[in-house]
Amino acid sequence: MTESLAHRVLEGDVRAASRLMRYIDDADPRAAADLKTLFPKTGRALVVGITGSPGAGKSTLTDRLIAAYRKQGKTVGVLAVDPTSPFTGGAILGDRIRMQGHAGDPGVFIRSLATRGNLGGLSRATGDCLRVMDAMGREVIIVETVGVGQDEIDIAQLAHTTVVVLVPGMGDDIQAIKAGILEVADVFAVNKADLDGADRVVRELRSMLELRHAVRAPPMDHDAHHAMVRAKAEGRKSEAPVGPPEWEPPIQKVIAARDQGVDELVAAIAQHNAFLDSSGERKVREKNRAMTQFVALLRDRLLAAGLSRLERERGKLDDVAQRIADRQADPYALADELAGRQP
Amino acid sequence: MTESLAHRVLEGDVRAASRLMRYIDDADPRAAADLKTLFPKTGRALVVGITGSPGAGKSTLTDRLIAAYRKQGKTVGVLAVDPTSPFTGGAILGDRIRMQGHAGDPGVFIRSLATRGNLGGLSRATGDCLRVMDAMGREVIIVETVGVGQDEIDIAQLAHTTVVVLVPGMGDDIQAIKAGILEVADVFAVNKADLDGADRVVRELRSMLELRHAVRAPPMDHDAHHAMVRAKAEGRKSEAPVGPPEWEPPIQKVIAARDQGVDELVAAIAQHNAFLDSSGERKVREKNRAMTQFVALLRDRLLAAGLSRLERERGKLDDVAQRIADRQADPYALADELAGRQP
Repeated sequence: MTESLAHRVLEGDVRAASRLMRYIDDADPRAAADLKTLFPKTGRALVVGITGSPGAGKSTLTDRLIAAYRKQGKTVGVLAVDPTSPFTGGAILGDRIRMQGHAGDPGVFIRSLATRGNLGGLSRATGDCLRVMDAMGREVIIVETVGVGQDEIDIAQLAHTTVVVLVPGMGDDIQAIKAGILEVADVFAVNKADLDGADRVVRELRSMLELRHAVRAPPMDHDAHHAMVRAKAEGRKSEAPVGPPEWEPPIQKVIAARDQGVDELVAAIAQHNAFLDSSGERKVREKNRAMTQFVALLRDRLLAAGLSRLERERGKLDDVAQRIADRQADPYALADELAGRQP
Repeated sequence: MTESLAHRVLEGDVRAASRLMRYIDDADPRAAADLKTLFPKTGRALVVGITGSPGAGKSTLTDRLIAAYRKQGKTVGVLAVDPTSPFTGGAILGDRIRMQGHAGDPGVFIRSLATRGNLGGLSRATGDCLRVMDAMGREVIIVETVGVGQDEIDIAQLAHTTVVVLVPGMGDDIQAIKAGILEVADVFAVNKADLDGADRVVRELRSMLELRHAVRAPPMDHDAHHAMVRAKAEGRKSEAPVGPPEWEPPIQKVIAARDQGVDELVAAIAQHNAFLDSSGERKVREKNRAMTQFVALLRDRLLAAGLSRLERERGKLDDVAQRIADRQADPYALADELAGRQP
């Protein structure tokens, strides 16, 4: 009898992990049994999120972080879900070649995820692939995403520690952060810190953090957090604060291309992890990660089942869409019917 | 008896439309009946999508497009789902004041949508709000999104004509486009065209389009398109081409801040719309829009119903997540069970 993919993954088999992650990315049902087998063995890895706008130098920084963790003797997994990342093939050849400096190192396992054609399935796929890397024994897993877009923010929330990367001279970056990324940042990295304007970015971040501090609500209890995530899952807005209690995100200047400030960044990530333990926040985050991953999984499974039922009962999705476009079918009544509500 | 919101919307009542759109944004069940009433009355508006990276000047361009369509005597609706847009409050005060130049004009109706806290519900909310603006008689509806992230690309596909806005000096922009936005662009606007590098952006776009032309597959028939959208809905990847057949996206240089090139951009949008009619592509797009909106709606409704069932049968989502985090519950088995599959 051949060993299952899951058992080979648990032994650290890179080829088995690659194949399972390909099944996950393709939403191939063959992944299901293996994921169930792996699930109880997960929960050991440190998951670090790297996010920021295109052009912030996230990939170079990721490259340097890999090297720093390897120096500590840790095995590293990288999951790139960033359409502009060289890992996913989005960047110029020179970058791609540079990133392959770790290609010969069995302690580094890099895998990219499709960022299109997934219609919302990206969070689910990222969560599942994280579990595979975790189960295969990677001690540090770096998830690289572009920090704009709801999917990407959801993905950032799968990490224990999220590093938001900024660069001088992109004023709008700060705007985007104001609008959404500030809440998910545990550590700020101001990259290309030798460029003009780096100090201004640091100052702006400081005043944003002070402002947040001034208006910050007391730490959320479990009921408040539950109400918030439930509201999110149902598509309602929630006014509750998202940030962790009592942690002041450090701002680290970095010049990734020259490997400056990277060790300090690694130290800041470690400090945040120590905080997670000392504050009890790790338990809260683990629960929130489980919730985010479960809701993403449930949404995918329900949609697949709902579409199958639709096609059995009402004909091809294509024909149903045509009837909707012709105003001969009511999408609201159809959706309510499939969701089992009274129309 | 008081008139329903839907009937007031059909009479063009801005306050009724605002309230209904707030219900939609909050996933308030009170929106359901009104949306059903409005649905048969929709399908008249021209929907223009404006997308691009933060800092591309999308809002200034939107502002100028509003003015251009108003000059043509058309009523305009704007739906801003861009976290960096002044419409959604993401930008600096000066911008916001500038955009309110249309505030006194009853022919302009501007509404922003939350971009966070929606866990995938954004496409559904955008689709529903589009229908409200359509039903209230807006002749042109502009949807402004940030062009990074899967949600935002889904939203771009709700438009008849999608304008991708680029600016010189953001090399990574082109990278992001290569990775995902090229397929959804019907018209390119190179904004801030007085800056150095504008011609380079135009050249790079031209060569990308030529490359695409060289490898383009023949126009998809209905079955191929169905297979592709179905694959997307199920989270599988699809290799099929997405762009419309036989349309070569024009590249228009614009200086939105000085109102230069805007009339030409409006003309390019009109040409694309004439193409939609002459080629039969409009019918295909209307069906695809209906499919995208229906799948987003179905996904939201199914998740809400699934979570309700979970909480009835298994206790609070929060407690379930805690059991998953403790590895005492299997999320894969739970999701399969709720989706009605054999575990």
